[in-house]
Amino acid sequence: MLKRRDLNFVLYELLGADALAERPRYAGQGREVYDAVLDTADGIAREFYAPNRKANDQQEPEVRDGRVWLQPGVKPAWDATAEAGIIASTHDEARGGLQLPHVIASAAIGHLEAANIGTASYPMLTAGASNLIAAFGNEDQKTRWLPPMLTGRFSGTMALTEPDAGSSLADLRTKAIPNADGTYRIEGTKIWISGGEHELTENIVHLVLARIEGAPSGTKGISLFIVPRRRVDAAGNPAGDNHVTLGGLIHKMGWRGTTSTLLNFGERGECFGELVGKPHHGLAYMFHMMNEARIGVGRAAMAMAYAAYHVGLEYAQQRRQGRLPGEKDPAKPPVTIIEHADIRRLLLTAKTAAEGSLHLILLCARLVDEQETGDEAARARATRLLEVLTPIAKTWPSIYGQEGISSALQVMGGYGYAREYDVEQLYRDNRLNQIHEGTNGIQALDLLGRKVVQEDGACFKALLDELQQLAAGATSAALAPLAAQLQGATQRMVAATQTLLPTMSKEPARGLANASVYLELVSRVVYGALWLRQAVVAEAALAAGASGDDRAFYEGKLQAAQFYFGFELPKHAVDADVLIRNEASAFEMRSAWF
Amino acid sequence: MLKRRDLNFVLYELLGADALAERPRYAGQGREVYDAVLDTADGIAREFYAPNRKANDQQEPEVRDGRVWLQPGVKPAWDATAEAGIIASTHDEARGGLQLPHVIASAAIGHLEAANIGTASYPMLTAGASNLIAAFGNEDQKTRWLPPMLTGRFSGTMALTEPDAGSSLADLRTKAIPNADGTYRIEGTKIWISGGEHELTENIVHLVLARIEGAPSGTKGISLFIVPRRRVDAAGNPAGDNHVTLGGLIHKMGWRGTTSTLLNFGERGECFGELVGKPHHGLAYMFHMMNEARIGVGRAAMAMAYAAYHVGLEYAQQRRQGRLPGEKDPAKPPVTIIEHADIRRLLLTAKTAAEGSLHLILLCARLVDEQETGDEAARARATRLLEVLTPIAKTWPSIYGQEGISSALQVMGGYGYAREYDVEQLYRDNRLNQIHEGTNGIQALDLLGRKVVQEDGACFKALLDELQQLAAGATSAALAPLAAQLQGATQRMVAATQTLLPTMSKEPARGLANASVYLELVSRVVYGALWLRQAVVAEAALAAGASGDDRAFYEGKLQAAQFYFGFELPKHAVDADVLIRNEASAFEMRSAWF
Repeated sequence: MLKRRDLNFVLYELLGADALAERPRYAGQGREVYDAVLDTADGIAREFYAPNRKANDQQEPEVRDGRVWLQPGVKPAWDATAEAGIIASTHDEARGGLQLPHVIASAAIGHLEAANIGTASYPMLTAGASNLIAAFGNEDQKTRWLPPMLTGRFSGTMALTEPDAGSSLADLRTKAIPNADGTYRIEGTKIWISGGEHELTENIVHLVLARIEGAPSGTKGISLFIVPRRRVDAAGNPAGDNHVTLGGLIHKMGWRGTTSTLLNFGERGECFGELVGKPHHGLAYMFHMMNEARIGVGRAAMAMAYAAYHVGLEYAQQRRQGRLPGEKDPAKPPVTIIEHADIRRLLLTAKTAAEGSLHLILLCARLVDEQETGDEAARARATRLLEVLTPIAKTWPSIYGQEGISSALQVMGGYGYAREYDVEQLYRDNRLNQIHEGTNGIQALDLLGRKVVQEDGACFKALLDELQQLAAGATSAALAPLAAQLQGATQRMVAATQTLLPTMSKEPARGLANASVYLELVSRVVYGALWLRQAVVAEAALAAGASGDDRAFYEGKLQAAQFYFGFELPKHAVDADVLIRNEASAFEMRSAWF
Repeated sequence: MLKRRDLNFVLYELLGADALAERPRYAGQGREVYDAVLDTADGIAREFYAPNRKANDQQEPEVRDGRVWLQPGVKPAWDATAEAGIIASTHDEARGGLQLPHVIASAAIGHLEAANIGTASYPMLTAGASNLIAAFGNEDQKTRWLPPMLTGRFSGTMALTEPDAGSSLADLRTKAIPNADGTYRIEGTKIWISGGEHELTENIVHLVLARIEGAPSGTKGISLFIVPRRRVDAAGNPAGDNHVTLGGLIHKMGWRGTTSTLLNFGERGECFGELVGKPHHGLAYMFHMMNEARIGVGRAAMAMAYAAYHVGLEYAQQRRQGRLPGEKDPAKPPVTIIEHADIRRLLLTAKTAAEGSLHLILLCARLVDEQETGDEAARARATRLLEVLTPIAKTWPSIYGQEGISSALQVMGGYGYAREYDVEQLYRDNRLNQIHEGTNGIQALDLLGRKVVQEDGACFKALLDELQQLAAGATSAALAPLAAQLQGATQRMVAATQTLLPTMSKEPARGLANASVYLELVSRVVYGALWLRQAVVAEAALAAGASGDDRAFYEGKLQAAQFYFGFELPKHAVDADVLIRNEASAFEMRSAWF
């Protein structure tokens, strides 16, 4: 569902993903293997995901006889995904995984998400939960839980949020009461749990944050537990209810294929949980996974923006309407609407959002590979860079992507607004990405309040280095002005950062008041660097004699970069200015004045 | 549903609507009458509209036994609205109307639209159709059609768009074949016809654009017809089918309560139509109505943004979550989220969008009153100003309003995204406002390509004068900097305009390529002037000793103006810069490069 040409460009021409096969972990792999994986995922997306996108939206999960019924297309998609090894794609071969680089796995999953996000959520949630067990579970837990999860017999969820503890996990109240045998009794209520109840799998493995009785208050007293929907016998088969009961389904504007649940733990009988790792370390573990999940949210947003862009583009290439300004002869046939400059502006907004996000998301995945298989210096660099890039990868594909989707919708006029077409669904689906896994406002506080100051600014420094590397080679007559523009923007970003730091330490609330604007600023600069890199590589390919479709592809990249620098990057200056004067009108507004 | 305090501020403190009662047309009226009208509309909105907002969205119109079934709450709302005289509110008393100023009628209708747009559409469409007949029909037509429409026995529609003629009305193909008796046979297909079929009323009066056989091609050969759903006997009662048949319903992302139809005229039998006015003048007549309809779209967008703002505000005042940055003690209770600066930023975005739009929309209505009852100079001025303000009133409440609604949704996090709450519906509903009655791209071309150059720039000049008048009195230490900022923005707007004019005449397609950015620029400046005016009036009221709730109200206005000038107006500079260098990257993108 993602075009192979686009993936080839990002994976191989920009990120050199095939070179990973030289590393011991990926021995025996190579571009052929990766292409085969992508083909498989694309095939599954086309056969099992795309045909049910609408049905999945229209036939929402519902409670039938106490169980959650899912639209019938979900199960075959789940089975095909599990069978192809996609849930286990990055896990060790020794545990039945494909041991693929994250950058390849991420592109493969992008196919599924572009085709039908509501269904793709189930394997993605399961992959996230299994990764957490793989990272922090003990050997026994890995042996018991991973095989059924990775093969699709069991599915997984993340159960963090409570009715009174969403953005503020410090306030969570779910209790874990120690049993004599080392297990815990779990009691509490979780809300917004995606995939929290259904009949897709034999069992559902919830990863639950809870507070062991007597633990400190706040974030320091939170532990992580494996809490299965059904208890499991010695042979690993489901055996009896574990009293995780459905309190209700939440009905969402979009992303309807993925059931969102209110779950009660231990309300109707003893609910048993296993501690993962050490007591009171739950939040740190969860954040490890959350970083992955946050990039995953960005990937989903990218996939939706990508899908919408191509629907809008195809429509614009076919639909005839109107004549160009200056054409006075009404007898002339109407032009295809892609000939109208405003339609091209809308499509370029969608294109730069989708393809910029594709680059960012796969770059992040590539950095995760570096963290896992690079040398020490590369690991350190990747880790620092990911600290800063994660809040951007979580948020900007959903914000800029929503602009892109809205643009694609606008291209199609009334047809874009009609449920008979796909774009309105993508507009509804993607809106969630600005909210879940930490709202965009939370990400902004994370970026400015933590990541920028972390390690004495070393993470921020890593970002600046990366921006410079991305711009390398932009020296031609066409690209040098863009490089200069990017450099100016980067300087303003640095100036804004330096202006805020003293206020942040003296008066944190005031210093962080415009954190969301700061996130916008950094995101716009980062996308500028990404687009400049794409332009540099495209220019080189054209110089090397690319022809035919390839030539048009690279010309499009160059023009899209010009568009980004012409229409989008300049917005950073407004952000920088707001930050440099630390605009206080929102901060100083009083509640009573609303 | 609109707060009385807000209406009082705009109607009486900003626009002096009560002074209209001194004019002959409104003799005997006055603030008491107007307040009573507003109370009535508000009461109807609360009793008949608001309770069905969700039901209307969830139980969509559907075809049952060949008829279009509407959710049962629609009919009582329709009846109450008609009975209160709201459909006929601006019509002459002699024809059964209330003869109210548009500014009052518009505020009254805003109540209904804020409560339930899907239902409010039916009376609004009928009012639009009846206004068109009142303006251009002959005496006989007015006598036969207006009374049943104004009293709610018949409803009305506008039937312009065809499957291949949406933005480009020049291409419409519906035919009108003259009959011997002076009537016409209508043959063709219309799409996206809101309220095109239902059982709400005894008859539906379609106002149809069609081409009389042999008429010139293009926009010059289009005529306007009254085409009833059912034929009417001498006594004015429905008598037999007129063969306007339902081709299908369109299912929209939002605004679901208003049925959207595909209609076939004359496919299954002779369909009779009456010519309105002169042959080939249809488009001009329709545009007269369309200007009103376009301000109506802006009003609807304003009402939705207003409703969303207040839902988000109430939530933020009650929901407790998290602690302020710098607070280290997790044992402290969570604060209400309105204490978080980022939440206030989101709410101020919603507030400035909603209340700025309320001001703009009622200002436009006030100008319509001036057109109808002012002296010659005032009429001329109002007409020119409306030419320029109409594309802004059509578009900016829907664009900026959608940002406001999205902000209110974001304030509520997952709850905002849940269909159990109201905001997600407003987010879906309002998105249509960027499309119908001429997409926002079409409005942009209208503004830059026609209105700005019209009458040698006299309309644009009227806008500049108005901007200056709105800023009058902004001389205090607090407001003078805003006035200076607005002046600078206005100068850049003028500079951008002057830069584009020569290109527009030499190479129209290139000169108009960034028309949408121009529309953004002018809109941001206009809202700046509106907010400055609100601040001037608020400051005067504070100086005059406002106290208690009033004091907080005016302080909120001042702070919202500061917010607008701090966060929103600065964006105009990016627009102006794009226009001054006439950024060509979208214009020069080639179709094959996408």
